[in-house]
Amino acid sequence: MSPNGQPLYEGKAKILYPGPEDGTLIQYFKDDATAFNAQKKDSIIGKGVLNNYISAHLLPAVGEIGIPHHLLGRMSHREQLIKQVEIIPIEVIVRNVAAGSICKRLGLEEGEKLDETLVEFCLKDDSLGDPVIAAEHIFALNKATPDELSQIVDMTLRINDFMQGLFFGIGVRLIDFKLEFGRLETEEDIEIILADEISPDNCRLWDVSTNEKMDKDRFRRDLGGLIEAYSEIARRLGVNVPANALEA
Amino acid sequence: MSPNGQPLYEGKAKILYPGPEDGTLIQYFKDDATAFNAQKKDSIIGKGVLNNYISAHLLPAVGEIGIPHHLLGRMSHREQLIKQVEIIPIEVIVRNVAAGSICKRLGLEEGEKLDETLVEFCLKDDSLGDPVIAAEHIFALNKATPDELSQIVDMTLRINDFMQGLFFGIGVRLIDFKLEFGRLETEEDIEIILADEISPDNCRLWDVSTNEKMDKDRFRRDLGGLIEAYSEIARRLGVNVPANALEA
Repeated sequence: MSPNGQPLYEGKAKILYPGPEDGTLIQYFKDDATAFNAQKKDSIIGKGVLNNYISAHLLPAVGEIGIPHHLLGRMSHREQLIKQVEIIPIEVIVRNVAAGSICKRLGLEEGEKLDETLVEFCLKDDSLGDPVIAAEHIFALNKATPDELSQIVDMTLRINDFMQGLFFGIGVRLIDFKLEFGRLETEEDIEIILADEISPDNCRLWDVSTNEKMDKDRFRRDLGGLIEAYSEIARRLGVNVPANALEA
Repeated sequence: MSPNGQPLYEGKAKILYPGPEDGTLIQYFKDDATAFNAQKKDSIIGKGVLNNYISAHLLPAVGEIGIPHHLLGRMSHREQLIKQVEIIPIEVIVRNVAAGSICKRLGLEEGEKLDETLVEFCLKDDSLGDPVIAAEHIFALNKATPDELSQIVDMTLRINDFMQGLFFGIGVRLIDFKLEFGRLETEEDIEIILADEISPDNCRLWDVSTNEKMDKDRFRRDLGGLIEAYSEIARRLGVNVPANALEA
């Protein structure tokens, strides 16, 4: 069930609705799965619910180490209440191990540990296929200021350290992940905070012992068992998703 | 069983012996427990073994995020092979939540979350009772250079983010912990690396749900059940300590 009201924005995996109060939004998680800039599409029953529960567990966790984020709370199986922010149109990608698009792009072997953690930026623009850009492009196109980008990179590296620890603790390697940030207007100034979601949809998660993929690559690569993998991530995280929730 | 050879150094909980090769040492974990600058003493069978296994799990884990450390490998139930370093005589204490000595010292409530993570320094000197010092003392006494201390603090904050994640993943809050660093002479220069141990002897670990103490406070405060608590930490970390090892 979608909330009442007209969507403000519909993305590939989520819809944003007006929230109950000024400055809030409802973020609704769909079951739609897309890959390769939406050239591959499907609907996988329960994916949105699992992402909602997992992200509602992980954002407060990074909040505990002092990373500000947009989540106010999970409202239902598919909805979260979030702070309204102006999304900075940059996808921030953190890579600890080479996998996915970078392998072809830069001639790396999948599974190769990078000498140093790599933070990449993509311009968030579906019509252009989210192209890789450098910091210089971000400034030249005025998508973020150097000070904003520096805050974003600092937060991103801290989130990476924390999340690597968290997933290591539950027998999972954090290969790479994608973050988005937004500008939150406060009375005094504008704060940069973590937005969007952290879930198996935008992380690559490999089982430490078996290297089994526990993320959206199960869909991208037609491996099957996506719901089982996301459910196993939730279980290991100690996130209790009610059995009847997946078809909600 | 202690290794053969004369100890090079005997501390409160560990003994250092010469290693098999130049530049290596054997770090032997005793069962001795001390607190309040060794005014309280006991021996708790199996504590050294558990610390050895747990530390041999955690140091390589922080190594995975790029923190250099002294551990070469666990050799036996009570021994590790380590790189010989010149220990920097500073105890680096990281506090996320107020507990222990700082509560009395600064009038804080046990369990109070600090507004910002606090990195404290103590001069490592038993005869003086390991007094709290500031960065200025460290430079005035020439214990470390500003560049060295800056490296130490950077590594410490990264370790804290990672370890908070790791323990959060297994249902444990990382309240505070103590680190020591050393200087490793390489062919080109001198590198600062993590030394000593990371174990329930020098971390405060509280169960997320019950706030039960799973660390050396069980000894300091006569709560009993220290071996059970350390064993539970090992179990949640996925560290397999053979049943017959504790009395080795």
